[in-house]
Amino acid sequence: MGAAAPIGVFDSGVGGLTVVRELERLLPGRPIIYFGDTARTPYGPKSPETLVRYAVEDTEFLLSRGAGVVVVACNSASSVAVPELRRRFSVPVFEVITPAVELALEVTRRGVVGVIGTRATVSSGVYERQLRARAPGVRVHSRPCPLLVPLVEEGWLRTRETRMIVKKYLHPLKVRQVDTLILGCTHYPLLKEVIQAKIGRRVRVIDSSTVVARRVRDALAEGPETASTGGPRSRFFVSDLTPNTVQVVRRFLGRRVELEKVSVPG
Amino acid sequence: MGAAAPIGVFDSGVGGLTVVRELERLLPGRPIIYFGDTARTPYGPKSPETLVRYAVEDTEFLLSRGAGVVVVACNSASSVAVPELRRRFSVPVFEVITPAVELALEVTRRGVVGVIGTRATVSSGVYERQLRARAPGVRVHSRPCPLLVPLVEEGWLRTRETRMIVKKYLHPLKVRQVDTLILGCTHYPLLKEVIQAKIGRRVRVIDSSTVVARRVRDALAEGPETASTGGPRSRFFVSDLTPNTVQVVRRFLGRRVELEKVSVPG
Repeated sequence: MGAAAPIGVFDSGVGGLTVVRELERLLPGRPIIYFGDTARTPYGPKSPETLVRYAVEDTEFLLSRGAGVVVVACNSASSVAVPELRRRFSVPVFEVITPAVELALEVTRRGVVGVIGTRATVSSGVYERQLRARAPGVRVHSRPCPLLVPLVEEGWLRTRETRMIVKKYLHPLKVRQVDTLILGCTHYPLLKEVIQAKIGRRVRVIDSSTVVARRVRDALAEGPETASTGGPRSRFFVSDLTPNTVQVVRRFLGRRVELEKVSVPG
Repeated sequence: MGAAAPIGVFDSGVGGLTVVRELERLLPGRPIIYFGDTARTPYGPKSPETLVRYAVEDTEFLLSRGAGVVVVACNSASSVAVPELRRRFSVPVFEVITPAVELALEVTRRGVVGVIGTRATVSSGVYERQLRARAPGVRVHSRPCPLLVPLVEEGWLRTRETRMIVKKYLHPLKVRQVDTLILGCTHYPLLKEVIQAKIGRRVRVIDSSTVVARRVRDALAEGPETASTGGPRSRFFVSDLTPNTVQVVRRFLGRRVELEKVSVPG
């Protein structure tokens, strides 16, 4: 029997590393193949057709490196590209939306759920549709927060400006008294403290990177070990590499890793 | 003799439309072919090799649509890709850096020049090199301002948060008493008022979109009319199209234009 197949994880950039961090915590020693599409980042403002094309190319890359399962660690891609990925590829494809939706419905007290994310994620309406399909009575309030990704990448995690912008974005959700808030973007866990403070201590904040990692762990525990063509070592690929990428990756993972630059597609 | 060849203008996204606005003002009736690479925007955080590849593809697209001259309306691409474009293509290639540098050296009173731009532009050191090559005694202070592009695209042109962030970014330049400030990014003219207020009324703020348009006008006045394979109508192409793109374009041009989506490369 081969070694455990690496878990493939892709994201538009470095945000998906919050999912990697959780996977490493829950499945220590399990190799991960990460691909961050930093040459085409961000995915948030882009159209569904473009996102599907990018997600297919990213998945092909992960499979070519021996991934046995694929985690779409990007909400924008998860929101529009997953059906196409499942149609095309035979490996299990995990996404970050359904697990967060299910947890939100478990924990909400009054059925008023807030969702924040990029423009692509919020416009897709995917969270609203999924929440309402499972719980028709739930009220959902969504808000695109396009500045939060650049703020995280700039490393402004606790500055006054960041706190003001978060407050401004969350204001309409606070007014509508959401009792549960889904962080619909893998960058946002780095702002979780500020977000929790601004939305209020009594609101349950759901971090999709944590819930998807749990889902992957549970699925792998149930399924058979898949033979792998990859080695046992985790590897981190990006499609573009700058000194700032190195810094930001360090901030996400809390440690330095070797980043390998690849051309995708190609 | 053919009609006047269209002026080709490309940018990573919609920022280059500030150059289009100036070209239309100075050369009314002259057709423009615009390409905004919105599928791969922004260029600012990306590496030189990636930017050269994108700039070559963007230029090939403009030439395929009949452009007789090419304006690189993106500082990040101008800073690293222009020599390669001039080597490969026979049409005149204009860029946004040299004209701004020359004007800065004309107007500076004490030889202390500030430059703001994206991370790619500032890291390239292109403004500093060009300023010092022409005026070895000049002092140059540069500052990357990665949040300004997302703030403009969000339409936050005069919000309190934007004013605070601009102030924070400009603080080190103000302390060093620059007397001239180059806006080294085509998005920044939309923030010119805030920038002027924060850097101080006595500092001369140089908007590269204005100076490059003047340069193009002067060159076209001197040269022969080039035969064109394109029609006389201006056309606006983007590599990705979302409702937000339509809104932002309107903000940049001050009017609605028809946006055509194309695949580049391809």
